[in-house]
Amino acid sequence: METKRHSLSHILAAAVLDIYPKTKLGIGPAIENGFYYDFDFPAPLTEDDLPKIEKRMQELIKEDLKFVKKSVSKIVAKKLFKNQPYKLELIKELPGKNVTIYETGKFTDLCKGPHIKSTKELPLSAFKLTKIAGAYWKGDEKNPMLTRIYGIAFETKKELDEFIKMQEEAEKRDHRKLGKELDLFCFSDLVGPGLPMFTPKGTILKEELQKEVEKICRNYGFEKVSTPHLAKIDLYEISGHAKKFADELFHVSSPKGHKFVIKPVQCPHQTQIYASRPRSYRDLPIRYMESEKQYRAEKPGEVGGLTRVYAITCEDGHTFCTREQVKDEIKSLVNIIKDFYTSIGLWGNHWVSLSTRGKDFSKYIGEKKDWDLCEKILQEVSDEMNLAAKKCPGEAALYGPKLDFMFKDASGKEIQIPTVQIDFATPKRFNLTYKNKEGLEENPVMVHRAILGSYERFMALLIEHYAGAFPLWLSPVQIRVIPISDRHLDYAEKIKKELHSFRVEINDENETVGKKIRNGELQKIPYLVIVGDKEIESNTVSVRERGMKDLGAMELNKFIEMLK
Amino acid sequence: METKRHSLSHILAAAVLDIYPKTKLGIGPAIENGFYYDFDFPAPLTEDDLPKIEKRMQELIKEDLKFVKKSVSKIVAKKLFKNQPYKLELIKELPGKNVTIYETGKFTDLCKGPHIKSTKELPLSAFKLTKIAGAYWKGDEKNPMLTRIYGIAFETKKELDEFIKMQEEAEKRDHRKLGKELDLFCFSDLVGPGLPMFTPKGTILKEELQKEVEKICRNYGFEKVSTPHLAKIDLYEISGHAKKFADELFHVSSPKGHKFVIKPVQCPHQTQIYASRPRSYRDLPIRYMESEKQYRAEKPGEVGGLTRVYAITCEDGHTFCTREQVKDEIKSLVNIIKDFYTSIGLWGNHWVSLSTRGKDFSKYIGEKKDWDLCEKILQEVSDEMNLAAKKCPGEAALYGPKLDFMFKDASGKEIQIPTVQIDFATPKRFNLTYKNKEGLEENPVMVHRAILGSYERFMALLIEHYAGAFPLWLSPVQIRVIPISDRHLDYAEKIKKELHSFRVEINDENETVGKKIRNGELQKIPYLVIVGDKEIESNTVSVRERGMKDLGAMELNKFIEMLK
Repeated sequence: METKRHSLSHILAAAVLDIYPKTKLGIGPAIENGFYYDFDFPAPLTEDDLPKIEKRMQELIKEDLKFVKKSVSKIVAKKLFKNQPYKLELIKELPGKNVTIYETGKFTDLCKGPHIKSTKELPLSAFKLTKIAGAYWKGDEKNPMLTRIYGIAFETKKELDEFIKMQEEAEKRDHRKLGKELDLFCFSDLVGPGLPMFTPKGTILKEELQKEVEKICRNYGFEKVSTPHLAKIDLYEISGHAKKFADELFHVSSPKGHKFVIKPVQCPHQTQIYASRPRSYRDLPIRYMESEKQYRAEKPGEVGGLTRVYAITCEDGHTFCTREQVKDEIKSLVNIIKDFYTSIGLWGNHWVSLSTRGKDFSKYIGEKKDWDLCEKILQEVSDEMNLAAKKCPGEAALYGPKLDFMFKDASGKEIQIPTVQIDFATPKRFNLTYKNKEGLEENPVMVHRAILGSYERFMALLIEHYAGAFPLWLSPVQIRVIPISDRHLDYAEKIKKELHSFRVEINDENETVGKKIRNGELQKIPYLVIVGDKEIESNTVSVRERGMKDLGAMELNKFIEMLK
Repeated sequence: METKRHSLSHILAAAVLDIYPKTKLGIGPAIENGFYYDFDFPAPLTEDDLPKIEKRMQELIKEDLKFVKKSVSKIVAKKLFKNQPYKLELIKELPGKNVTIYETGKFTDLCKGPHIKSTKELPLSAFKLTKIAGAYWKGDEKNPMLTRIYGIAFETKKELDEFIKMQEEAEKRDHRKLGKELDLFCFSDLVGPGLPMFTPKGTILKEELQKEVEKICRNYGFEKVSTPHLAKIDLYEISGHAKKFADELFHVSSPKGHKFVIKPVQCPHQTQIYASRPRSYRDLPIRYMESEKQYRAEKPGEVGGLTRVYAITCEDGHTFCTREQVKDEIKSLVNIIKDFYTSIGLWGNHWVSLSTRGKDFSKYIGEKKDWDLCEKILQEVSDEMNLAAKKCPGEAALYGPKLDFMFKDASGKEIQIPTVQIDFATPKRFNLTYKNKEGLEENPVMVHRAILGSYERFMALLIEHYAGAFPLWLSPVQIRVIPISDRHLDYAEKIKKELHSFRVEINDENETVGKKIRNGELQKIPYLVIVGDKEIESNTVSVRERGMKDLGAMELNKFIEMLK
C-alpha cells in the first residue's frame, strides 16, 4: 500500500499541474494512511479547491497511465526541470552523475521510486484529499513556506470509510474541542499561547483529581508542602537540571537586578525543605508532595492544547528514606498508583516496565553497585506484588532504574504516566543527611514518583478517554435541574437545596424542555432532573441518566440513594 | 528625652574613643526609644564588647561632664578633626564659614545640638547598649560599611525594664523565630531570599486558611479558577499595571526567544476567563476566586521573613456584575469579610474606612459620575449594614472608591487587609461585555475584593497574634499522644487511629514523660494525651490542654466530644 500511496502523490502533482500549470513542485512521499505533496502555488489555495483536484486525479487514474522509470544525466534532468527551482535544488544536491525520474503520462517527477506499474492498480474510490497546511521547504523555517496537500488512501472504499469514521470520532473526542464546548479551559491572545487558564468547571475537574491523589498519598504518609516558582540557578547547577534543561529554562530578571530561573521540575526545591533542619533515622521516611506549576520553554511553534504547554501543573512527590526502607516504600508507591488508577477506571488495562540502564554506563550518574541494588529491589517488588514487570534495558532515568506503568486509553492509545524511580545521587549532590542509629551522618535515598504527572496532560487524556462524559465524581456539573416552565422554578430551587452535597445547577433559560434536555446532553451532564406540575404534585423528580433512557419519576430520597 | 538620648550618643562616642582611640567617628543621633552612633573601628567589634563600653559610659556620666557649645571657623574645625576623615567630609559639606561643636570633657564632636547641660541629668541605670549592626556611611551602599552601636534609654529604670520586657515579648512572638521553632516555613540559600518554602506544618496552616476562606466565598457564589504565572506584557499594558508596577515586574526570557512577565496581580488574567466566551445578563454576577502566587521584585535589601517577599500567595477574587447588582454584591462581600474574621476571632475589634478620591481628580482614572455613584453605593451599604464607615478622602484606589477594614492584632497593632473596591474602568479597558435584557452589549462592573490578601503576610500576622498558639482548627498538629514508655506504644497507635478525624502525632522518642510534655508545650500543641498503664487499664486518656492545668483522665469518647 505504501507504494500505491506514493504513486498517488505523483498523480496529485500531475493533477495540480494540469489545473495550475505555473505551480512549482516540492516533494511528495507516502505517509501513514496516506500521502502528501508540497506545492508553491502561483495564487493561494483553499480547501474548497480540493474536490476539483480530486476529480482531475480520478480522470488521470482512469486513463491507465504507466509509471516509467528512467535514469538520466544531471544535465538532462536540469533541462527537464528548468522551470522547477525546488527540483533543480534537489538535483544539485544528489550524489553521482545520474538521477532517476518517473514519467506518468505527460507528468515527470524526480523520484527514486518504487512505484506501481500503472494507475489502473489505484482504487478509484478508496482515496480522498483531506486538507491543506503550510510547510516550510525542507522543514526549515528559514526557507519559503509551501502549501502541503494531504490525502488518505486505502485498498478499499470500506477501509477508507472506516478510517474517516474513526477520525471523526477522534475529532469529537479531541480535548481542545471538548475543552471549549464544555467550558473547561481557555486561552487568551493577551496572555499568550501555551498558558492555559482553567475556568470554574475545569478547576473543579483539576481539584477533584488533586483531592483524590492527595487523599490516597496521605494514606501512605505523604505530607503536602508548597514551594515557590523561582530559584537561583545555583540550585539547578547542583541538581544537574541547569545542564539537562538548558534550552528549556525560563530566565527571570528585574529592573532592580534580580536574577532567577523558573523551576522546570519540583525535586530540588523539596530537597531544600528536607535540608532545612537536622534529621534523624527516627524521622524517616519523610514524604513530600505538592501540586504546583513548573515552566518549560517549549518551542513556540509546538505548543498547543493541554498536551504541550509552558505552564505544567505538576503533581510531584519525593520520599527520603534509608536503604533498608526503600523496598517497602516502592511497594507503597505501587499501591498508590494502583489505588489511583483504580478510581480512574484504568487499572488492569496496563503493563509494567522495569526500566534498567543500557550497556553504556557513561550515560548515567551514580555507582554501579547502587544501580545493581536498585534493580534487584525493583525485581523483588515486581515478583512479590505480581507486577510481571518486563525488563527494558536502556529505559532507566539518568540517576537510577525505575518502574514505569503503561496504560491504554479508550481509543487503545498507550500512555505512560506513573513512574517510581530510585535515586542515590541527588541526596549526595545536595549533601542531604540524617543521623543513623549509631549517631553517624548518612545520605538518605530519594525516591521520585509520579502518579498523575502533569494535570494538563492528564486532563487532556481524561477528556479524550471519556469523550467529556466524566464519571459522576469528576463531573464539574453532576446534576442539572430543568424546570418545565418559570412557575416550577421555586420547586427547582428547593430540589437544588436538598441536593446540596452534589454540584447542581438549574437551567432557568427561556427555552423549551426539549431544547434544555438536548443542551444538558451536549454538556454531558450525568443526570438531568426535570420538574413540572406532575413532579410537584407527587413530590418527585423525573430523572434522565446520561446515555440511558429516561429513568422516570422517583422520590428525591431514592434518587440521592441511587447517586451514592 | 530626645535631647538626653542625643547626649547619650556623644557619651557613647566618648567612651568608645577612650577604649579604642584609633576609632573613626561617623554620626550619632537620637532615635525612637534610644540612640545610636556609627563607628569605623580599627578591628572588628562584637556584642560581647558592649558591656565594657557601657561601663565606661557610666564612669563618664558620673564625672558630671558639661556639654559646652562652641562656634568655630571651618579652618579651626578641620584642625580639631584632622584624624577624623568622616567629620572632615561633613565639615566640607556644611554651608557657611563656621560650624558648631560640642565639648564634653576630653571629647569633642561636630554637632549642632541641642544637648543637656551636664551628664548628671542622665539617669545612670535607665540606658542600655543593645546591639551592633552594619550601616553604610550616609546610608549609601557605595560608601564604606561602618559599625553602628544601638542603645535604648528612658527616664527611669522602670521604663527601661518595661521596654525590655515588651521587646522580649515581641521577639518571642516574632513570626520568623516562631516559624523556625514550630517548623512552619524555611528559606534556602540555594533558592534565594524572599522565596519562602512552606513545610508540611506551614502548608497545613495555609491550606486550613484557604479552605475556610473558599468555603465562605462559595456560600456567596464564588467559583474557583486557576491561571498561570506568566503573561505577555500586553496584558499589563492594557490593565495599566505595566506602568504602575514597572519597577516591580519580573521579566522572563528563554534561549528560544520567549518574552513574558510574571504576574504582579491576579485581576488581568481573570478578565481573560470572563472574556473567553459571550456573556448574557442572565450569567451575571460571575464571581472568580483563586489562591495563586504572584511575584513582585522588591528591593533585595528589604526582603525578610514572610512580610516582605518576592513570592506572594494571593487570595484574590473578582465579581463581574451589572450596575444594578453592585450594591447587593458589596453587601455579600462585607458579609464574607465578617464571616471570615469572625472565624479568625478578629471581628468586632475593627473600624471601616470609606476611602474616597482626593481633590485632584487627575490622579484617578474613570469618569466623575461613576465615582459619585460608587461613593453613594458604599455610603448606603455602610448605613444599611451599620458599618459606621469613616470617610477618608484621598484613600481611594486608582480606579475607584473602596471600603477598607482595619483590625487590631493581639499587640494592639493596626492592620489593614480586607478591602472591597468598585471598578468601572478595567472592564472598559479590556472591552469586557455582556448582552443586556434589550440585547445590547454593555460593560459589566468589576468588584475587586481581598479577604485575607497575601497568605504570607496573613500567616505572619496570625503567628504573632496567637504567639504560635493557634486555635484548634488552625493547629498543624492538634493532638500529640505521649506514651509513657515503649510498651504503651500500641495503645498510643490505637488512640491515634480512633482520633483519625484530627491531626494527631505520636511522640515515640526515647525521653522522659516530663521532657515529652515540655516539648509538646513548646510546640504549642493544643492537646497532649498521655497514655500509660493506668490509662490502658481504665481504657481512658489523660489530657493536658494547652495553657491549662491537667484535665485528668477521661474516656476517649468524652474527649472527642469536648474537641467538637
